[in-house]
Amino acid sequence: MKRVYIEELGRHVGEEVLLQGWLYNKRSSGKIRFLLLRDGTGVVQGVMMKGAVPEETFVKFDDLTQESSFALRGKVRKEDRAPGGFELEVSDVTVYAIAKEYPITPKDHGVEFLADRRHLWLRSSRQHAIMRVRHRIIKAIRDFFDDRGFTLIDSPVLTPAACEGTSTLFETEYFDLGKAYLTQSGQLYAEAGALAFGKVYCFGPTFRAEKSKTRRHLSEFWMVEPEVAFADLNDDMDLAEEFLEYIVQSVLKDRAPELKALERNISFLENVKRPLPRISYDEAVAILQSKGLPFEWGNDLGGTDETVISEQFDRPVMVHRYPSQVKAFYMKRDPNNPKVALAVDVLAPEGYGEIIGGSQREDDLDVLLERIREHNLPQEAFEWYLDLRRYGTVPHAGFGLGVERTVAWICGLDHVRETIPFPRMIYRLTP
Amino acid sequence: MKRVYIEELGRHVGEEVLLQGWLYNKRSSGKIRFLLLRDGTGVVQGVMMKGAVPEETFVKFDDLTQESSFALRGKVRKEDRAPGGFELEVSDVTVYAIAKEYPITPKDHGVEFLADRRHLWLRSSRQHAIMRVRHRIIKAIRDFFDDRGFTLIDSPVLTPAACEGTSTLFETEYFDLGKAYLTQSGQLYAEAGALAFGKVYCFGPTFRAEKSKTRRHLSEFWMVEPEVAFADLNDDMDLAEEFLEYIVQSVLKDRAPELKALERNISFLENVKRPLPRISYDEAVAILQSKGLPFEWGNDLGGTDETVISEQFDRPVMVHRYPSQVKAFYMKRDPNNPKVALAVDVLAPEGYGEIIGGSQREDDLDVLLERIREHNLPQEAFEWYLDLRRYGTVPHAGFGLGVERTVAWICGLDHVRETIPFPRMIYRLTP
Repeated sequence: MKRVYIEELGRHVGEEVLLQGWLYNKRSSGKIRFLLLRDGTGVVQGVMMKGAVPEETFVKFDDLTQESSFALRGKVRKEDRAPGGFELEVSDVTVYAIAKEYPITPKDHGVEFLADRRHLWLRSSRQHAIMRVRHRIIKAIRDFFDDRGFTLIDSPVLTPAACEGTSTLFETEYFDLGKAYLTQSGQLYAEAGALAFGKVYCFGPTFRAEKSKTRRHLSEFWMVEPEVAFADLNDDMDLAEEFLEYIVQSVLKDRAPELKALERNISFLENVKRPLPRISYDEAVAILQSKGLPFEWGNDLGGTDETVISEQFDRPVMVHRYPSQVKAFYMKRDPNNPKVALAVDVLAPEGYGEIIGGSQREDDLDVLLERIREHNLPQEAFEWYLDLRRYGTVPHAGFGLGVERTVAWICGLDHVRETIPFPRMIYRLTP
Repeated sequence: MKRVYIEELGRHVGEEVLLQGWLYNKRSSGKIRFLLLRDGTGVVQGVMMKGAVPEETFVKFDDLTQESSFALRGKVRKEDRAPGGFELEVSDVTVYAIAKEYPITPKDHGVEFLADRRHLWLRSSRQHAIMRVRHRIIKAIRDFFDDRGFTLIDSPVLTPAACEGTSTLFETEYFDLGKAYLTQSGQLYAEAGALAFGKVYCFGPTFRAEKSKTRRHLSEFWMVEPEVAFADLNDDMDLAEEFLEYIVQSVLKDRAPELKALERNISFLENVKRPLPRISYDEAVAILQSKGLPFEWGNDLGGTDETVISEQFDRPVMVHRYPSQVKAFYMKRDPNNPKVALAVDVLAPEGYGEIIGGSQREDDLDVLLERIREHNLPQEAFEWYLDLRRYGTVPHAGFGLGVERTVAWICGLDHVRETIPFPRMIYRLTP
């Protein structure tokens, strides 16, 4: 008999099937025994009636502990009251392994207790829902760029130069070549890619050795970074809003049950449609000051500032043209006002903060050399990057989106630690 | 006028369009000037006739150096003799930036010269073809698993324990938690995922600090690792052959022009269809000995051995049931012959060697504990992994496929350094 998965049961109503999985829960009521089996694609209830199955099958119910592995044979029945819409009339039970006393029980556990058992915690329906949303987000990201003619140009994790100071970089010895640093961003490599392929993206893990212990920071997180030749800041914002709409609408379309399981209020997500509001940094400052916040022009936006601004809008808001002093050396300055950079941050609603940061890049060789000197960066380490301005420089722009913050926002989680299978934080490197 | 990409020209025949890109080459013949423009999606020839365009447009031809950035306006004409099937009757030329003398010229350069200029070398038609094949392979990998109900479970790069000795691991200080090591494989994490989600895959960069300088080794490379609960070695081989067929046929279908540009003999690729031959290690040994090679049962297969074996077949060959002494501690031994492990390696044809390594995993807690002791591994570091056998253990199996070796094989390259945008090797960490 062919084994089927729980998510396929709808195609097998009235048929005898084999299901394999683990005991999620069990209960008995008089002469009926209910076995809840999970198989990674869903949970289904198997029903056994005393007398309807052989006694030696019926008593296997007693042996099965939580997370024991077993198989059920039986007929699929449509049952609208059941969680997935189906249940199984059990005809046979095969036990593979009886689990020892499972440490995660329905009672409340502290988050550190669960994080120490992340390899087991992933089996819970909540983590299951989050990981399925994460997967859908990642697939939407890749599909979006693949469908629009972007070429994937993976950037390296191991990089030679500590471009912006070593304090927030993980370093490692690299054979006889000295130290290598774990990448914080693939952008400079993506720029080389854009001038070779027109439109590219890189997408991989990135690293920050920041000693910050907040609900928004991981030391290892995934970031996607598109980069487009012959694009300016407006093109960059057009791309970012189309991209966010596509991600959110894909999740809403295909992961509604998971969002429901997470008790996510999806009204904010349904609003994520173009056009997204675009305000300048100056306008953002005016909002903060009108709310009585003592914010001065020239500072970067802090977490609270971002929350206050995002609360003025019913969808993500794009804030553009930040003071150049708070932005990176490679960002092009606005020709109409050199005090600001042609940068954009996209702030998620509901206090989730910055999920996208991007800019038009400085494409003039001499200006870029001046910026490198101003920032006291080692020019030699950037010679290859400067080559991109020596040989066929063009206006170009791009942005980065952090996957884990996006997962946290779309799932409505209050901490990024649940957004990645095995989180790495200042105080956590295990399991 | 809307800007179009060269790959879209077929939809604009007879229309006036704007193309933006870089000078790939130019030539003149009497009163005609030819400008070859590349834009990352292709190369097209723009044609200008003296007298047909204003003189100030016509003379821009003289200024343009290789890799200068410029735009062409003109009418799209079908031209079967042109490389992409179209050419442009130029009506206007806009120059953005004149490139300095481009270091990569049509003459032959040494590979180190090119590798030092990887950020520019990527613009060549050969690297363009390779990167487009690489992208298609990666997309095929993800589509294959996504379409078959696998859940993506990203494994961490930063890992706590040096499971199999530190000699081939990159290490870094991790805040106050001691050392962290860059992952060599996500498999153990994928196993945790399989017991939570049934079928999973992880796919990301992996690292080997091996001091080997061969044409098959990178210190940073991408690996995809599926893992399936309730699967044995045969299921694993079924999955591997379906997977390889899918990847190769996807590339043949969508990247024929690129394979042609690489002068790839595709007859070996067309053969990659199920079923793939399956031979035991014992049979492999018999082949080697019949060829007069002094190979002794019990040794691992070397590169030459793999080449000799693969030459006996017209498509990839699966070699299964290796001596357990040459295989990892987590591989399950064959109950019919404990001297061999339920492992499989898939060898690519034409001397490309192992591209897949997999196995059924040891699912018995006590046996696994014994293996950990035999291999002198620190049990404490594996407690979480052992939990997977304590709580609901099931037969399970998986494999890993290295992306760069697969790209090298499918493209027919003789070195893996060209298979990844920015290769990292024992003697190369730049650009």
